Amino acid sequence: MPLAVGFEEIAANRCFAGWHRRYRHRSATLRCDMVFAVYLPPQADQRRVPALYWLSGLTCSDENFMQKAGAMRLAATLGLAIVVPDTSPRGAGVPGDPDGAWDFGHGAGFYLNATQEPWAAHYQMHDYVVHELPALIEEALPIDARRGICGHSMGGHGALVCALRNPGRYLSLSAMAPISHPLASPWGEKAFLRYLGEDLAAWRAWDACELIAVARERLPLLVDQGEADPFLAAQLRPETLRQACAAAGHPLTLRLHPGYDHSYYFIATFIEDHLRHHAAVLLA
Amino acid sequence: MPLAVGFEEIAANRCFAGWHRRYRHRSATLRCDMVFAVYLPPQADQRRVPALYWLSGLTCSDENFMQKAGAMRLAATLGLAIVVPDTSPRGAGVPGDPDGAWDFGHGAGFYLNATQEPWAAHYQMHDYVVHELPALIEEALPIDARRGICGHSMGGHGALVCALRNPGRYLSLSAMAPISHPLASPWGEKAFLRYLGEDLAAWRAWDACELIAVARERLPLLVDQGEADPFLAAQLRPETLRQACAAAGHPLTLRLHPGYDHSYYFIATFIEDHLRHHAAVLLA
Repeated sequence: MPLAVGFEEIAANRCFAGWHRRYRHRSATLRCDMVFAVYLPPQADQRRVPALYWLSGLTCSDENFMQKAGAMRLAATLGLAIVVPDTSPRGAGVPGDPDGAWDFGHGAGFYLNATQEPWAAHYQMHDYVVHELPALIEEALPIDARRGICGHSMGGHGALVCALRNPGRYLSLSAMAPISHPLASPWGEKAFLRYLGEDLAAWRAWDACELIAVARERLPLLVDQGEADPFLAAQLRPETLRQACAAAGHPLTLRLHPGYDHSYYFIATFIEDHLRHHAAVLLA
Repeated sequence: MPLAVGFEEIAANRCFAGWHRRYRHRSATLRCDMVFAVYLPPQADQRRVPALYWLSGLTCSDENFMQKAGAMRLAATLGLAIVVPDTSPRGAGVPGDPDGAWDFGHGAGFYLNATQEPWAAHYQMHDYVVHELPALIEEALPIDARRGICGHSMGGHGALVCALRNPGRYLSLSAMAPISHPLASPWGEKAFLRYLGEDLAAWRAWDACELIAVARERLPLLVDQGEADPFLAAQLRPETLRQACAAAGHPLTLRLHPGYDHSYYFIATFIEDHLRHHAAVLLA
């Protein structure tokens, strides 16, 4: 396959008769160079395929999911591409956490559009993930506009918010161990205060539970959560999502799994159910 | 499950209804503390299960295969345990490569018994993998003596040599991108010279092609190799294995895969074929 215009290919690995590829490109939205990964199933040699966008959690890059989730086997069978962006803008000119923490800044963009400086100049991950990256990919790769979105932890929050804020843009939605109600979780509070300032109304616009209450579109939502997840009670709070969905009449399948934690061993165990959830719509 | 006697459990992750567990223990053979990983399928809650021993390649620890190979899904279905030792002795008192290279010493034990000092005091990986570790595991975990062995690159060499030197000890054997003929490869030459000295007869005792020529047992051998593997021509040399098997009448299925490289994307693509190869014997 020829190199996509404007993308620098930095890795290509044959995998389940398709290709895992990594690209570097200049992001106008984020004002920095970004790397993302794509899995192209073998069907993409013949025709355009739909894509599942995967948003990773805190500290991850484009690599974690592709290396650890074990998603390519079934994606190759289904004919589903997987797109994995990085979790924040990066680079020498992009400010990180002032204290060097791992839960803010580099690797922790929270998939929102920051309004507060110095973050706002680069941290526009929502627009990057929802608009810039799909436009580039659908122009340059054999991937079409049938889009599903899923993610883990911070990326579960991201997937929910990206879909809920943009009705019609995604055909399918799911999340694994999402930060369900970030404006009432320590990770979310820290990030929202810095990225968005002190206005609670601004926080509500990036909170899945708040958005579900007023959503115009009701994509059926699959959520998996491990009951031995150490972040369950304080950070993830799936019961808030259950309550928000119940109050709004939003279709939710929330599965709680005894013994499972927050790791990729949990993700790997249930990722195929998520691929099938998306494929049932994207490949219908 | 109670902690195995003499093992310190350092991680436990629920995965495909079974458990990924990591243990630290004191190795009498290697004279240092060692970490290994086990995947116990759900069937091990009820009965003892057979085990596939996986030997990893240069620079790896017990973690790479468990995180990246995607082997647990099918292992859980089949009822097959997976045991992954580290690739060398380690620790402050264990000498590594004098030049700090990654292809000798720590992470590069080559699964042999060194005879030359300062290596011989610790580098006895063959006896550790073949004898000490299985004895500990079969005593303390719900794993029995039905053993298969497989590995990648340096670990492919290791799997071949462990089985060929110990007829009757393994019921099944396979390898992925093995160093087929280490005494005629740069990686092998460097390691054998230091670990074994200058006596070519000593080298032959740790070389799969040499051992196949004189083997008393003919376990059917499955080998997968990517044709885009950058180490193919100089280090891995599968044609030497093909020639040795043909000359000796050793049953070999050697599959060359266009486009595939040396990475875990290659391993993930074909690992399930290896699990089935082993399960066909171990679970017959």
